[in-house]
Amino acid sequence: MVSVVTTYSEGELERVVGNSSGVVIIADSNLPKSYVDGVMDVCIKTTKVHLIEIEGGESVKTLDNVDRMYEFFDSVEADRETVLICLGGGTITDMGGFAASTYKRGLGLVLLPTTVLGMVDAAIGGKTGVNRKCKNGVIKNQIGTFYNSLMVGINQTWLASLPPEEIRSGWAEMAKHALLIGGEHLNDFKNVSSDLDGVGRFIKRSAEIKEGIVRRDEKEKGERASLNLGHTVGHALESLSLDKTEDSSARIKHGEAVAWGLVFALEASVIKLGFDKNIASELQQWIVTGIEKRVNMGSSEEVWAKMRGDKKNINGNVRDVLLQAPGEVIWDFEWNREEFTILWEQFREKYA
Amino acid sequence: MVSVVTTYSEGELERVVGNSSGVVIIADSNLPKSYVDGVMDVCIKTTKVHLIEIEGGESVKTLDNVDRMYEFFDSVEADRETVLICLGGGTITDMGGFAASTYKRGLGLVLLPTTVLGMVDAAIGGKTGVNRKCKNGVIKNQIGTFYNSLMVGINQTWLASLPPEEIRSGWAEMAKHALLIGGEHLNDFKNVSSDLDGVGRFIKRSAEIKEGIVRRDEKEKGERASLNLGHTVGHALESLSLDKTEDSSARIKHGEAVAWGLVFALEASVIKLGFDKNIASELQQWIVTGIEKRVNMGSSEEVWAKMRGDKKNINGNVRDVLLQAPGEVIWDFEWNREEFTILWEQFREKYA
Repeated sequence: MVSVVTTYSEGELERVVGNSSGVVIIADSNLPKSYVDGVMDVCIKTTKVHLIEIEGGESVKTLDNVDRMYEFFDSVEADRETVLICLGGGTITDMGGFAASTYKRGLGLVLLPTTVLGMVDAAIGGKTGVNRKCKNGVIKNQIGTFYNSLMVGINQTWLASLPPEEIRSGWAEMAKHALLIGGEHLNDFKNVSSDLDGVGRFIKRSAEIKEGIVRRDEKEKGERASLNLGHTVGHALESLSLDKTEDSSARIKHGEAVAWGLVFALEASVIKLGFDKNIASELQQWIVTGIEKRVNMGSSEEVWAKMRGDKKNINGNVRDVLLQAPGEVIWDFEWNREEFTILWEQFREKYA
Repeated sequence: MVSVVTTYSEGELERVVGNSSGVVIIADSNLPKSYVDGVMDVCIKTTKVHLIEIEGGESVKTLDNVDRMYEFFDSVEADRETVLICLGGGTITDMGGFAASTYKRGLGLVLLPTTVLGMVDAAIGGKTGVNRKCKNGVIKNQIGTFYNSLMVGINQTWLASLPPEEIRSGWAEMAKHALLIGGEHLNDFKNVSSDLDGVGRFIKRSAEIKEGIVRRDEKEKGERASLNLGHTVGHALESLSLDKTEDSSARIKHGEAVAWGLVFALEASVIKLGFDKNIASELQQWIVTGIEKRVNMGSSEEVWAKMRGDKKNINGNVRDVLLQAPGEVIWDFEWNREEFTILWEQFREKYA
């Protein structure tokens, strides 16, 4: 059973950790102290609490850091009734979730996302993961598990400290959900800005769209694959940026990569599936404006090599998600290399 | 759903791997070549096959070796439809199972145990695990997952090459199952020798006992804990041996440690739960004779430190499994340190 996403309340957290033998909180060290203190205060009422602070970001998701968490669990004598609370963005919840799912075959897990991306996407659906350096460079979420949490608590007041580019990064996943569901929700969402003021009103609805898809297909045997819209190319761009950019602050953010993945998916959908050209063009314009940033596209060879390593692929083909129309999803499209190469080079030229 | 244990047949294996995008076989390098070739020949009919050979044994279960498997999966472009076949003893199936459960959030998994221990215990019930060096030394299966395999195939002809001490090691787990179920099965099993001739006739029944318990309690919330009979002390003895003994062939085998754990559990059951003294004495005699080997018992401080790190423990107490009578199990007994110390030192003196 997929864990149910709830609006964060101290009472609910107290109930969940009340039966634990102890709590370990892993929190992003960039968060305002008051967020961490607030969560600690709730836990400390009923159990002992240990804190790990670590700076979030894609580069935190390594097996070495997971091993450091095991070391910490061991040092505080964590047992199966220990609850790990992950307070931070998707990188903290992904990495922490993986550590929790594998230590002593599973600790209790509470996810408290503090980013838009975490709230509408990363914390929902029971996927954990860390990246791994492979023969073609870093592959995102190469190592991971399906593991359900005891609670996912959404507290939008935690978004107040989030930088604008992080809001926009989350907005891109919300745009994806809107494209997947289409209809009135897409129309409404298209008309708000990609800042906190705009996205704030749609976070709950966007989280519900993801939760619904996941509930119908927990282990990604079918429909759940539709959530990869924009992610085949998006993950490739993000991985290339991880390989090429030493300075972590200069790396492409997940949502930025996904946004460009969506723009490409619309381009491909027109050519491969007859998606209406004018609607696609309008949606592309909306996304490009919303994300506010051009990215390094990479050559078709580089992108293809990354896409080939994607978890979704079977038999070496590259599987992708495209749209026939907003809300009409084809989640098992297969690219052949030549077609992709031509389309990608055109696309790259258009948006470079 | 827990995977169903079947008698190994080539047709069944062919069916299971027939839909895969490729097969990776991890096989114990000590196995006769004909076993590996036999399995390869079946797979190669329908798909591409890659082979990793690695010498089994408790020291193989490390995160470093898991990472080597990830590396190999990456090098052969394993994807989610790849099937990993583990051919070997419990250490190969535990470690391979963990790698399969975490690579791309889960490859297909087939377990083909080649030891008595693997057939009646390690390969049944969906537990994977590797050991980890912690502050109190190596802790067994500290890192692991619950992960169901597509198939567990039992082929008793693979036992022909097994050394006598490996047969006896498996016999100890079978003795545990017999103590847990009691009645006629215990009486029958007590009367056969601890060699292949004796145990061979009971492997299927013993595997069924474990499977039944696991099916009723997959995630170890209750009854499954009864399978830890003899294992609290057993794991401690085994871990101490891993810490202290450089030469892997001189280390205590899992079943030997469990056998001594059973002898101690019977001793404790008499004192703590009023288990009939004469029956206990007779059963202890049977086990000591069957296992044919004295082991280094370790001091009560050493054993207690190991037991405290056990996954079953909650809140720092040491949980154990004892018997009121054969077939009557108390799976949530809690030791206090003083009581254990006195009893252990007496026990150690008796059997040193």
